[in-house]
Amino acid sequence: MSRIALITDFGDSHYAGILKGVISSIDPSIPTIDITHHISPQNIIEAAFILKEAYPFFGTNTVFLTIVDPGVGSDRRGILIKKGGNYFIGPDNGVFEFVIRDGDYEAYEIIKKDFFTSKISNTFHGRDIFAPLAAFVASGKEYREVLSPIEDPTRLEIPQPEITDRTITGEIVYIDSFGNLITNIPRTLVEGYNCSIKIKNRRLGRIRKTYSEVKGGLPSALIGSSDMLEIMVSCGSAEKWFNIKRDRLKNYKIIINRHPPKNSSPK
Amino acid sequence: MSRIALITDFGDSHYAGILKGVISSIDPSIPTIDITHHISPQNIIEAAFILKEAYPFFGTNTVFLTIVDPGVGSDRRGILIKKGGNYFIGPDNGVFEFVIRDGDYEAYEIIKKDFFTSKISNTFHGRDIFAPLAAFVASGKEYREVLSPIEDPTRLEIPQPEITDRTITGEIVYIDSFGNLITNIPRTLVEGYNCSIKIKNRRLGRIRKTYSEVKGGLPSALIGSSDMLEIMVSCGSAEKWFNIKRDRLKNYKIIINRHPPKNSSPK
Amino acid sequence: MSRIALITDFGDSHYAGILKGVISSIDPSIPTIDITHHISPQNIIEAAFILKEAYPFFGTNTVFLTIVDPGVGSDRRGILIKKGGNYFIGPDNGVFEFVIRDGDYEAYEIIKKDFFTSKISNTFHGRDIFAPLAAFVASGKEYREVLSPIEDPTRLEIPQPEITDRTITGEIVYIDSFGNLITNIPRTLVEGYNCSIKIKNRRLGRIRKTYSEVKGGLPSALIGSSDMLEIMVSCGSAEKWFNIKRDRLKNYKIIINRHPPKNSSPK
Repeated sequence: MSRIALITDFGDSHYAGILKGVISSIDPSIPTIDITHHISPQNIIEAAFILKEAYPFFGTNTVFLTIVDPGVGSDRRGILIKKGGNYFIGPDNGVFEFVIRDGDYEAYEIIKKDFFTSKISNTFHGRDIFAPLAAFVASGKEYREVLSPIEDPTRLEIPQPEITDRTITGEIVYIDSFGNLITNIPRTLVEGYNCSIKIKNRRLGRIRKTYSEVKGGLPSALIGSSDMLEIMVSCGSAEKWFNIKRDRLKNYKIIINRHPPKNSSPK
Repeated sequence: MSRIALITDFGDSHYAGILKGVISSIDPSIPTIDITHHISPQNIIEAAFILKEAYPFFGTNTVFLTIVDPGVGSDRRGILIKKGGNYFIGPDNGVFEFVIRDGDYEAYEIIKKDFFTSKISNTFHGRDIFAPLAAFVASGKEYREVLSPIEDPTRLEIPQPEITDRTITGEIVYIDSFGNLITNIPRTLVEGYNCSIKIKNRRLGRIRKTYSEVKGGLPSALIGSSDMLEIMVSCGSAEKWFNIKRDRLKNYKIIINRHPPKNSSPK
Repeated sequence: MSRIALITDFGDSHYAGILKGVISSIDPSIPTIDITHHISPQNIIEAAFILKEAYPFFGTNTVFLTIVDPGVGSDRRGILIKKGGNYFIGPDNGVFEFVIRDGDYEAYEIIKKDFFTSKISNTFHGRDIFAPLAAFVASGKEYREVLSPIEDPTRLEIPQPEITDRTITGEIVYIDSFGNLITNIPRTLVEGYNCSIKIKNRRLGRIRKTYSEVKGGLPSALIGSSDMLEIMVSCGSAEKWFNIKRDRLKNYKIIINRHPPKNSSPK
């Protein structure tokens, strides 16, 4: 049995409900799972990170319908990616960067856009093209004539941390619902080092293990469930504490001074 | 197999979860689909428009449980509408205006309110009456003694655009999660004309085809996925750009000057 | 067939979606029902009240996965409670107070934390321990070696109303999505009395039956669907009307003067 998991920037609106209506009208037995509909509007990088973090926890035979689509109605392509027993469907704007990054995938362009409905809007291909295709895939209906193989799915430039001998400079890639600031600095860059961390001129000290080991109300850093460095405030919101503006995440730099631990650094 | 689709103004609260608990306690195999729970509180007109926009995309055999119910506990009736193989259940306050508008429906009042539970609250008929009835309908249980046919379901006065020879004056009927302003001006009133559009003394120029064809940050207008004229800001929020107050939508007028296209208007 | 109902403080983030991914990866046929993911962050008392209000409306054979977990990664225990044909899984921090309060339950500590995955984060036991256990329970897989019986699940101190001969002093326990203020004063303390109610020096008069019987825009009180006294504003938000701060609910006192009704109080 296949299922469809959804990531969109549709927020609290009825647009996600309409996707599920379309799916159920094609095959009411397909389960749908909301991953989130609260990607920041038009934020492709955030959607790419959320998909990367969520999809390994779903079993195979899941269709990931990922619709963050500022270019809807333009000539941007629609695509389907097959990888590792799962399917990824959405606009070809880089949102699948972390799926294709390591290769070992098949990519297809959606060429027969009017296969599912003859009346295609310019503003809601999720409803008119992507959701119907996802339902066809999940229910095992024949859809292959809709697709044509491609070799060049669109790549997304992911902001990489800058690394020098003793310093890592990273940035915030998204903010979760607790106000935790998730950075682009992976566990592997800091684990095993003595680190001191700075953001907006505030020193956060060493990396913690848990949210609760810091005094309530004070900011700190830990490796979060995404295996990335997070800035957090115990029993509070780092977003509020640091007065972070969501539309200017690139303005904030996370600076880490890292040293090998003393016991492995004889003088 | 039937399913139940939900539209409410319950927001992020647990009230929608309780509806689903009630449904699953009657028949756990009934799938439920959230259309939206974020209708503006007590806004019957908005709920009517959202239902109109969403329900054609669901297959038949769907029960639309639509609960925006400022009159709960008063003597307003509860109703069930049958139309086109679907069912619509909720308070009889006009929320089903677009379902009944074109006739060809059957309407029933819910007369045995204590059929499902003897303990009926004054504040949550969704839980105590409407959700149980929806579950009975969806699961094929016998419920007909609960109902009595009526001829006069409550109608809702929908704000109509004013049309003169060269001018259309419309209003905003709801705002979606992107901040797009959805108006009461249908595609048919503007398609094939040269239109210039004004809102809050800002001229928006001609009607666009896609969100992305306008420079980011600037307001414009297009025909949205609901087939109604929308005011939008490319990569932004028209709600914020125009500083629209959601509780005063009637104060904003959308004024369109329309002319037949030149090639069909010889001088 | 079992199902899993979810209460968390994960908000609009993808964390709840990941829980459902984990569940579906173990058994895709388990239905999941969102009760709410909008418990105020880290608010154990609010979660306890919401669970108390919601769970009686679900049938038996429901697994209530309740994750409000400020102590995640510390030495707080994880527990499973069996009561009345249902299961309750989450951190042992008092969130199940109303489930265990009346006795007649079995409690178990989760002792084999790495039974489901060897890689357990310090920040997301919902994903790594609680959701997998819930899926094992719901799908009938063998999980008993994970558990060990305990006699002392953590209790939660619930703020009780102060009662004198003629006066009840209560407080707000949570605010719903309409801005209604739900208090800790149960129906039984006020029913059959003549009551006059005061909050923030505003007198609200007698207790009403319905939201709609008060003039729009004015505050009043009624017994809500939770059988607790609620402060409400007809067609509005009591939270806004009284300018209530959600992080200082303990600061607001609801004071009731109650008198036996005149016909039962001869002089």
